[in-house]
Amino acid sequence: MNGRCVITVGDLGEFGIVARIAGRLPQGRTVLLGPGDDAALVDAPDGRVVVTTDLLLENRHFRLDWSSAYDIGRKAAAQNLADVVAMGAVPTGVVVGLGLPATTAAGWLDDLADGFRDECDLVGASVVGGDTTRCDLVVIGVTALGDLGGRAPVTRSGARPGDVVAVAGRLGHAAAGLALLQAGRAGGAGPGDPAPAELETLVDAHRRPRPPYPCGVQAAELGATAMLDVSDGLLQDLGHIAEAGGVGVALDLSAFTVPEELETAARLLGADPLDWVLTGGEDHALAATFPGGVRLPPAWTEIGRVTEGEGVEAGDRTSEHRGWDHFRT
Amino acid sequence: MNGRCVITVGDLGEFGIVARIAGRLPQGRTVLLGPGDDAALVDAPDGRVVVTTDLLLENRHFRLDWSSAYDIGRKAAAQNLADVVAMGAVPTGVVVGLGLPATTAAGWLDDLADGFRDECDLVGASVVGGDTTRCDLVVIGVTALGDLGGRAPVTRSGARPGDVVAVAGRLGHAAAGLALLQAGRAGGAGPGDPAPAELETLVDAHRRPRPPYPCGVQAAELGATAMLDVSDGLLQDLGHIAEAGGVGVALDLSAFTVPEELETAARLLGADPLDWVLTGGEDHALAATFPGGVRLPPAWTEIGRVTEGEGVEAGDRTSEHRGWDHFRT
Repeated sequence: MNGRCVITVGDLGEFGIVARIAGRLPQGRTVLLGPGDDAALVDAPDGRVVVTTDLLLENRHFRLDWSSAYDIGRKAAAQNLADVVAMGAVPTGVVVGLGLPATTAAGWLDDLADGFRDECDLVGASVVGGDTTRCDLVVIGVTALGDLGGRAPVTRSGARPGDVVAVAGRLGHAAAGLALLQAGRAGGAGPGDPAPAELETLVDAHRRPRPPYPCGVQAAELGATAMLDVSDGLLQDLGHIAEAGGVGVALDLSAFTVPEELETAARLLGADPLDWVLTGGEDHALAATFPGGVRLPPAWTEIGRVTEGEGVEAGDRTSEHRGWDHFRT
Repeated sequence: MNGRCVITVGDLGEFGIVARIAGRLPQGRTVLLGPGDDAALVDAPDGRVVVTTDLLLENRHFRLDWSSAYDIGRKAAAQNLADVVAMGAVPTGVVVGLGLPATTAAGWLDDLADGFRDECDLVGASVVGGDTTRCDLVVIGVTALGDLGGRAPVTRSGARPGDVVAVAGRLGHAAAGLALLQAGRAGGAGPGDPAPAELETLVDAHRRPRPPYPCGVQAAELGATAMLDVSDGLLQDLGHIAEAGGVGVALDLSAFTVPEELETAARLLGADPLDWVLTGGEDHALAATFPGGVRLPPAWTEIGRVTEGEGVEAGDRTSEHRGWDHFRT
């Protein structure tokens, strides 16, 4: 215990931290052996396992003054679960490597664990293990596993000319929320006019993305030829599908409905809402291509076609909006 | 390109980095889909998958002036592969989350990837994916997967009174090597007398552990009742086996042979070599318990017995040497 009557992770020590987190993480039906051993053991009934990893850093991927520990846990889990879902798989287990300052309050760690737990619970997955170490800043390494249930993985490379391009989930919301935070207009606490309260949904979208989890398996079962989650911006991510498939993508900009709250936020900030929709990352929508003639369920919106060209055509937005490079931006 | 005629990871950008690393990482027979998509796909013929993760930080887990990029890659892979092996499983795939300063030379990154590749190659595993982001210090998040081949996992909790306690692999070598580095006596470059050249094997042991990979499955097939890899020090790690099993461990200190190079290093530094053997981590030896009467293969050395007591008895070393806590030490 330190003198401030706040228990810190430094007070708990490595083994205290592990015990404390493990106590907050129920182990679901996919888990055969949970936290506490050299490794965990997770069900992989398909005989193959989907695996993806992300590294999130304080002040680069999240800010402690803009997001609560609970939000950060939700978001860190969501972006990895979305990658699993984008293969057409069902997430099963998550492991987390955690670097924390010794002064971090134990309650902050509890909230982070709860965020991971609740996001994983949305898809029936569990946090099955992890590693913790002292670090000057908060570092979160997340790895998610998933099961394909006998289906072929939906990769980025299968798009064919004539395929329908469609998206499921929100686009531009997280980018608009981030812009509001950066402009100091979130929560009415900004230097200028307070943002209308309804724009808090955009700030929430930045803090806690809502990937359309059920749509991944749905797309696979509909015969999706290519799929990914939109993490770097729609134009850039569709560019990956075009490049991997040796095809082009032609978007129909009239297919995009810009929600009212994006219009409101854009007016407030003097921004272009369609720009957020086309280049904003971090909503973790799903973008996929389907054979022509597919009947798309309501969650999916057709936004264009796969062509024999190359790159992504989007009217006057074609080349100047590229999205995110984690080393260059 | 910058002006120094050294290509950096900042010059390459995120996608250039991914392409460059992927080109150095052959994909073995366990890999169904390698780097470049939202997620990878790895064989899991057992229908269950072993998973473990570690987070390694510059200046906490490694120093750039003491270890080459190649060494760091070898060691980062080794400590995770050892965790998989300690369950009695065979490693299949590894994913790596990498935080790097933008000024990192591309050649350094190449060497890191080569280190991962070569270590994984020892066990037939492959680096199947990753994530990269800019960071002020080098951060490496490693997750390793493995397959049990139909065997039950060997956990920490199965030791029973009467069981034989045995170890495979080196103990204390990495700790002695670290002590030589800390004393400035490695490579003859220290302020005092240069260390004899044969002590370089100890420094190498710190830089590149050599976990006894084949011994994990071997122990499982011999009916090991509990197993772990020694990463925090033998006394502390056997303490985990004792606690998890509700048993005690009584070590026979006369069973330990202290190798000549440890004696030499200890004389040079005024240290106790048995202290390194009993409390030094990072060699990633395997410690296991076996039913009494087992015939141990030559790689394994019997060092004690499981008792009905509690904790670890090791003569006069019983309580004062505890090992490593990543938050407290």
